[in-house]
Amino acid sequence: MNRRIITISREFGSGGRSIGKQLAERLGYKYYDKELIDKLVEKTGYDKKVIEKEGEYAPGKNIFAYAFVGRTIDGMSVSDYLWKEQREMILEIAEKENCVIVGRCADYILRDRKDVLNVYIHADKEFRAKRIVELYGESDEKPVKRLEDKDAKRAVNYRYYTDRKWGMSQNYHIALDSGVLGMDKCVEMILSALSC
Amino acid sequence: MNRRIITISREFGSGGRSIGKQLAERLGYKYYDKELIDKLVEKTGYDKKVIEKEGEYAPGKNIFAYAFVGRTIDGMSVSDYLWKEQREMILEIAEKENCVIVGRCADYILRDRKDVLNVYIHADKEFRAKRIVELYGESDEKPVKRLEDKDAKRAVNYRYYTDRKWGMSQNYHIALDSGVLGMDKCVEMILSALSC
Repeated sequence: MNRRIITISREFGSGGRSIGKQLAERLGYKYYDKELIDKLVEKTGYDKKVIEKEGEYAPGKNIFAYAFVGRTIDGMSVSDYLWKEQREMILEIAEKENCVIVGRCADYILRDRKDVLNVYIHADKEFRAKRIVELYGESDEKPVKRLEDKDAKRAVNYRYYTDRKWGMSQNYHIALDSGVLGMDKCVEMILSALSC
Repeated sequence: MNRRIITISREFGSGGRSIGKQLAERLGYKYYDKELIDKLVEKTGYDKKVIEKEGEYAPGKNIFAYAFVGRTIDGMSVSDYLWKEQREMILEIAEKENCVIVGRCADYILRDRKDVLNVYIHADKEFRAKRIVELYGESDEKPVKRLEDKDAKRAVNYRYYTDRKWGMSQNYHIALDSGVLGMDKCVEMILSALSC
């Protein structure tokens, strides 16, 4: 069975996005990351900034904070509403085209499909801290603190919507340390697995 | 940097051992799994059955059970004593030869070396249950129950001696789903990563 959809979950700064982009280019697949936000803006009418904030990250580290974020007219929280809309969008995209989808719990959302390859990219903090400073520049916050915050938010979001632990090998077909293996090797390894 | 030591952690029935054996054969590396038990028998004088029971598995799922297992003359529990001896043995082996080591928290024990590739092999329960019946035959216990028990023991042992969560992607350079990818593909992917 050829895997015509690749989902990439990744620690912040690990290069998962670059790996995803390279894969999409090499394969001629459509690439979805921030593109999903634009589609969601179009679909829901919500402001892009709200979607960026609520769409992938939890509002705080505390899972209970979810309940108090604000509600849509039908009583659903904004996060839950955006999750529902985004989920439907991802299911539709997967149905219609070959693609690489970064983040957004796509591994979980597409778990019943047999044509999906789920990948997780991680690296140690030193590697990632150096990389985020190179990519995004310095900020008031220390780079290690920045990545710990982002990772914590992703983990809470993943747990909340999937009831799974983010980063557990069992959730992915392939999990790779991009810091040790290098980005190009990760791309090659993932490509070599697509025919499974 | 060439990785001249491969550690393989694996869910019970996932084929991690077969993958390790194939790697050792292909690379001409020494293979350590049950071989470590024989060495430990020789080194400590403990009975093979005791070592098999205590050497890799915790005596029960409950981490506190460790404290009550029995003690050596210097007050250490048998598990702790065997862990200490096994740890030293693994450090020595890694120092002197190219090898594949299956289980025994070798990824953690060798974490300071830069010539080690840490691999985790997992697969879904259906795949593993089928495989353990083919390999080890039927038993009174249902195969899924058997593998859940073994995995739980390995997870407790790993947590106890490493303070890490067994199966978290971050502990390994490569984690692979052998049920989806197939054994041969896993071997190829690991071989392709050795030059990192």
